[in-house]
Amino acid sequence: MTPGHHVAAWRYPDSEASEVLKFRFYKRLAQIAERGKFDLLFLADGYAVSEAFPEAVAQTVAVRPEPITLLSALSAVTEHVGLVATVSTTYNEPFHVARKFASLDHLSDGRAAWNVVTSNHSAEAYNFGRDEHLLHSLRYERAREFIQVAKGLWDSWEDDAFVYDKDNAIFADRGKLHTLNHQGEWFSVRGPLNVARPVQGYPVIVQAGASEPGKELAASSAEVIFTAWQTLEEARRFYADVKGRLSKHGRAPEDLLIMPGVFPIIGRTEEEAAEKKASLERLIPAEAGVSLLSNLISFDLSTYPVDGPLPDLPELAQVNGGKSRFQLIKDLAERDNLTIRQLYQRIAGARGHREILGTPVQIADQLEEWFVGGAADGFNVMPPYLPGGLEDFVELVVPELQRRGLFRAEYEGKTLREHLGLSRPPHPAALSGSPRINTDTVRTAGGLEHPERGNEASLHYTNR
Amino acid sequence: MTPGHHVAAWRYPDSEASEVLKFRFYKRLAQIAERGKFDLLFLADGYAVSEAFPEAVAQTVAVRPEPITLLSALSAVTEHVGLVATVSTTYNEPFHVARKFASLDHLSDGRAAWNVVTSNHSAEAYNFGRDEHLLHSLRYERAREFIQVAKGLWDSWEDDAFVYDKDNAIFADRGKLHTLNHQGEWFSVRGPLNVARPVQGYPVIVQAGASEPGKELAASSAEVIFTAWQTLEEARRFYADVKGRLSKHGRAPEDLLIMPGVFPIIGRTEEEAAEKKASLERLIPAEAGVSLLSNLISFDLSTYPVDGPLPDLPELAQVNGGKSRFQLIKDLAERDNLTIRQLYQRIAGARGHREILGTPVQIADQLEEWFVGGAADGFNVMPPYLPGGLEDFVELVVPELQRRGLFRAEYEGKTLREHLGLSRPPHPAALSGSPRINTDTVRTAGGLEHPERGNEASLHYTNR
Repeated sequence: MTPGHHVAAWRYPDSEASEVLKFRFYKRLAQIAERGKFDLLFLADGYAVSEAFPEAVAQTVAVRPEPITLLSALSAVTEHVGLVATVSTTYNEPFHVARKFASLDHLSDGRAAWNVVTSNHSAEAYNFGRDEHLLHSLRYERAREFIQVAKGLWDSWEDDAFVYDKDNAIFADRGKLHTLNHQGEWFSVRGPLNVARPVQGYPVIVQAGASEPGKELAASSAEVIFTAWQTLEEARRFYADVKGRLSKHGRAPEDLLIMPGVFPIIGRTEEEAAEKKASLERLIPAEAGVSLLSNLISFDLSTYPVDGPLPDLPELAQVNGGKSRFQLIKDLAERDNLTIRQLYQRIAGARGHREILGTPVQIADQLEEWFVGGAADGFNVMPPYLPGGLEDFVELVVPELQRRGLFRAEYEGKTLREHLGLSRPPHPAALSGSPRINTDTVRTAGGLEHPERGNEASLHYTNR
Repeated sequence: MTPGHHVAAWRYPDSEASEVLKFRFYKRLAQIAERGKFDLLFLADGYAVSEAFPEAVAQTVAVRPEPITLLSALSAVTEHVGLVATVSTTYNEPFHVARKFASLDHLSDGRAAWNVVTSNHSAEAYNFGRDEHLLHSLRYERAREFIQVAKGLWDSWEDDAFVYDKDNAIFADRGKLHTLNHQGEWFSVRGPLNVARPVQGYPVIVQAGASEPGKELAASSAEVIFTAWQTLEEARRFYADVKGRLSKHGRAPEDLLIMPGVFPIIGRTEEEAAEKKASLERLIPAEAGVSLLSNLISFDLSTYPVDGPLPDLPELAQVNGGKSRFQLIKDLAERDNLTIRQLYQRIAGARGHREILGTPVQIADQLEEWFVGGAADGFNVMPPYLPGGLEDFVELVVPELQRRGLFRAEYEGKTLREHLGLSRPPHPAALSGSPRINTDTVRTAGGLEHPERGNEASLHYTNR
């Protein structure tokens, strides 16, 4: 949600509201992130205009460029920063998705990542000939098979399949081309893919679901998790839970990086930070705040008094949207006894993510506490307004983290996998009979060392 | 088919065979095209690896980047040249396609175009859960509705829907958002699109089908036609036929530009050109030549003697591929009494397009003859090898055309529509009661003048 993560970011005096579809705006963001040595730039996405009620269209930013299209353009004006596009498995075909990410990975020399989502709203279903949104549990079944098909397509060509032998008229070694012939519950895809194996083997796989099927899918296939927690205790519990699930999939704890979202409000003084926060809150129109809250919990609050309490909400099991976000918001309202207005002011900025407020030193303290405290391998940084909020972070907070030895001074690798210390998945044919998922083999074959996972490669810019 | 349009281009001494998935290769091509003041750069596409028989994979280039991803990256390193991506209506969803082209049009400041194809091969069907390729006539029905839905989605927001009024908290005028609610034979799409109306209103619509339903679809909706003809007489007949169909759709002759493909073999002398041609022909392995020919006519020739005649081919009505190309090749073989080898050598370069051979002056003569002779509004230039063949065209032929007053010296407009002299389609709401398709209104509203259509905006680089 540009230009910033706060729902009223576009009203902030510094924000460039009319630039939300302009390339130069995103180019500037990407170049600031790269100057700040961020691992990656992340774009969220959805396939509908949110129309929870009419004011939502008038008061919030309902348009955005399609992420792969935008990230591909940004790949041409950056050299290091990773490029993470959100693409839903519920309303796409694996062949197209595998091909686009493979293309982006080649064009960017190994900087592509795919944030796998399953979509949240029925409004998206209506744009693809469906009468209703696919059920939560079925979406995850489809997602699992979708990822499997995509990986199979990325493995169509072995890494050394192309030989370019002009004299003997051999462009490719036919024996190193593999036809997938996938026949599953959800997809039937023959293959092979008409793009070479991605530079990174597979683009980095990112996920954000924190429900039970979401955590299981992440444990089996994700390499980065974006997540939202308010307290250190909750974040630690989630961290231990997900890392603990990896061994049964033959994976090591360092094969999956957990990155909670943070929403930094940075001032040169505490007072300046507090005033920024208050001025952002004042900019939220009540209708937009209620709309946003309704969307986050998949429940229409527009008919309830804005200065009254949350009404009785359905049980978690009946929610067919983002289940973990629903629970988080419900718990927050109960714990602090908040009205609807107080609740939307609390979450309209960070939208369930952790707000961190203060001077650069205080911001760094709050990041360090979670990082050393077993709650995070890195952070998804979501500035309230853009590009100013990102510039503040890069100019004020990054140097402080560098002084503490918590953040890289220079990029050391070329690919996103190298920035993150993630190994490059070898082609199955290179595993010569050993099981397909074998982290030791994977790490050796990738030729990468990451003895101290979760080190300096730990801050991530996000444009969610 | 990179690096060049000749099937053996990758074996040509100058060609950069290992660069076919590298951004720097395409960046260089795009910048050469822009230096040559070309209107547009065109990328063909398909959703499968051609495996007519095993040698095809070994001897030809079976991989390519997905076009929108590549063109989006190129938009960041060019300023003027139009960007034409091929996307099939048979294996895609209108919401995604409309959104990607709208995004590309915004990010490139109005340089996007969509080459609408319906796909040719069953191999593509197998990658999308289908058992067989959709029938030719049904593909065109689907294409017609697909374009209609895409235009409806592009019209979701009126051109002035976004007001960015920070003081009054109005980002968008709700009254200028239109929900499509399309319910048709092939698609059910509610809308609206979550991207603003494209800079060009709609991206330029390009087509290439020359079959009867292809010509009808083009007459109703295309703004540019890429086509393939061997002789002036055939090209003239096609030109008159298609232009003659426009009036019944309420369109003027200048609303649709016809651009035959040309395959230029340029030498500083006639001898040098002839030697280039012979050396390219010598590079074609027999298997690759037969494979290519088989694909073009959708009929497997691999079991027939290569120095014998074409076997009896099926009747045109039974062909479920590119019908016009099939007829052209069959006619050519009969007319000149060619063996399979002679036929593939004849068509392996230009693949049915017109080969033009000689010095820069002779090349310019051949272009001028068709241009002034009522056969072409411009040309799709398909160099045999890249980037050298394009560089030769830009450095040797373009100056000759400029001397003759047949080619622009500088870009005058910003958008692709402006380069081509095509008007900007107004939003239906701006037509205030007049019929949706009304070329006079369209031209006035676009604010463009093009008294002499088919003037200098007449040469087009293609990467088909």
